[in-house]
Amino acid sequence: MIEAIAFADVLAARERLRGVAHLTAVATSRTLDALAGRAIFLKCENLQRGGSFKFRGAYTMISQLPGNMRAHGVVTYSSGNHAQGVALAARLLDVPAVICMPSDAPAVKVAATRSYGADIVFYDRMRDDRAALAQHIAATRGAMLVPPYDHPHIMAGQGTAALELLEQVAGIDTLVVPVGGGGLIAGCAVAAHGVNPAVQVIGVEPEDADDTRRSLMAGERVTIAPPATIADGLRVTTPGALTFPIVQRHVAQIVTVSDEEIREAIRFVMLRMKLVVEPSGAAGVAAVMAGRVPAGAQRVGVIVCGGNIDPPLLASLW
Amino acid sequence: MIEAIAFADVLAARERLRGVAHLTAVATSRTLDALAGRAIFLKCENLQRGGSFKFRGAYTMISQLPGNMRAHGVVTYSSGNHAQGVALAARLLDVPAVICMPSDAPAVKVAATRSYGADIVFYDRMRDDRAALAQHIAATRGAMLVPPYDHPHIMAGQGTAALELLEQVAGIDTLVVPVGGGGLIAGCAVAAHGVNPAVQVIGVEPEDADDTRRSLMAGERVTIAPPATIADGLRVTTPGALTFPIVQRHVAQIVTVSDEEIREAIRFVMLRMKLVVEPSGAAGVAAVMAGRVPAGAQRVGVIVCGGNIDPPLLASLW
Repeated sequence: MIEAIAFADVLAARERLRGVAHLTAVATSRTLDALAGRAIFLKCENLQRGGSFKFRGAYTMISQLPGNMRAHGVVTYSSGNHAQGVALAARLLDVPAVICMPSDAPAVKVAATRSYGADIVFYDRMRDDRAALAQHIAATRGAMLVPPYDHPHIMAGQGTAALELLEQVAGIDTLVVPVGGGGLIAGCAVAAHGVNPAVQVIGVEPEDADDTRRSLMAGERVTIAPPATIADGLRVTTPGALTFPIVQRHVAQIVTVSDEEIREAIRFVMLRMKLVVEPSGAAGVAAVMAGRVPAGAQRVGVIVCGGNIDPPLLASLW
Repeated sequence: MIEAIAFADVLAARERLRGVAHLTAVATSRTLDALAGRAIFLKCENLQRGGSFKFRGAYTMISQLPGNMRAHGVVTYSSGNHAQGVALAARLLDVPAVICMPSDAPAVKVAATRSYGADIVFYDRMRDDRAALAQHIAATRGAMLVPPYDHPHIMAGQGTAALELLEQVAGIDTLVVPVGGGGLIAGCAVAAHGVNPAVQVIGVEPEDADDTRRSLMAGERVTIAPPATIADGLRVTTPGALTFPIVQRHVAQIVTVSDEEIREAIRFVMLRMKLVVEPSGAAGVAAVMAGRVPAGAQRVGVIVCGGNIDPPLLASLW
């Protein structure tokens, strides 16, 4: 099967993002290395514009919108980081954006999305089909729908995070990436294997949001019940149609972490490394701290995918 | 009057610290620039080893201990960042360290200091004179006392933070530095004026810990009542004998910030910039956000001096 993206697409996305996305820092900690028994390199996408890696994919896709379509704008649905990534990318590209958010979305996320200049349309999480709503708005306005993960431009953009990390740190043998819909890990896996086919790519899912792990075992996409994990960015019930074949081919293994392991990882990264991470962003660190990476891994890159944590959750950690 | 340190001392300290101290990142935020109405550059000493700038001075001083005195070790007193800075520097230099800490010091700070291998001697904050206790231990053991700020090696080491910042960012016209005993601002002011005599150095104190502001107005060191500010690193009652003359000569102005302004700055830096800072570390950001820097300042460097925040305080912010 032909994969939705190739390494060349990630390289092209990197050129689009040059001087626009932050080349985010790589953080290390001697204490973390000692805990994990190997060298750990955290790619700090919590320091990315908009507070997560989502800006990479959104900007990569929206910047390819044909000139005559720009005035019609873009539409997406998200209660979280994708909303902010799309809103910010659209503003930078001077494209109007409509974001469909659940009416009970945290005020801080609504405010952040609005501060980037997007129009927000609220929906009822119990009653409405958000994808259908966004498609309806897109069709009515002639706007482009920017999906959260299942699109080649989105995957290629997200993959630039891993491309950068492998250029920033020599000799990485293992790459640990949180898995929601699979856009980040698909892009990162293609990027990593483009640089070095020997890199092991390990996905991380919360214990009750293991749709990709189960799908890999089944050999096809399966759908799970809506998960309750605190890692809101990873609450996905089935892998993407385009992301899953790439995951099947490029990902060595999916490991799972508990919510308590995620909380412990957030506390560690905040207190010892002085970085604010959200639960999804800490999932890879949790996997490393819990000893879930393969025994032979010596130099492990971890994508810390976001830092947009809700203040009430922050307060509840201590 | 001859100052206790010259620019050459800061340059020499930088050589001692090369490859040992972290060259810490400079963080920026478009939102912060917009709030402040100028370009703001945060020198992230919260990302320094030991979680604050204190490692710079401690290592600079302890690394100059003569070989025949090393076995006798070093002694200091501190409930906070200086304790961790000394403990870590001593361990790296293979020198025994004794730290006098109050018996009611936060468990997390005691644990961090102990994890660096230091011996801890507890004292009663109400009953004991901690400086006298440390001096007694030093005299008994033939150990060297490492004071928290009032020593040329300490000041020179702390000044390397500003030296780095001015090399990392071109055209800084104003430098904002929190003031406790004055070791950090004295070193940073000498460094800044060594690079460019036109840089304005602005000190920041909590409203009720304004001993240096009052001393500058009086033209001599005055002593204030013990302050209650949440910025525990700045709870000093009088400037240092060696730091104060340097402050008199090099510092343009001391501004003050309220505890609520400090809290607001911590929340901003955590939620928007994803960096964990302690109250003292946020004092400079608070001054910038509250519009306390001189009107003409266009490119403002701020020393974010530490990130060792206590979890209960973290929890209380939201």
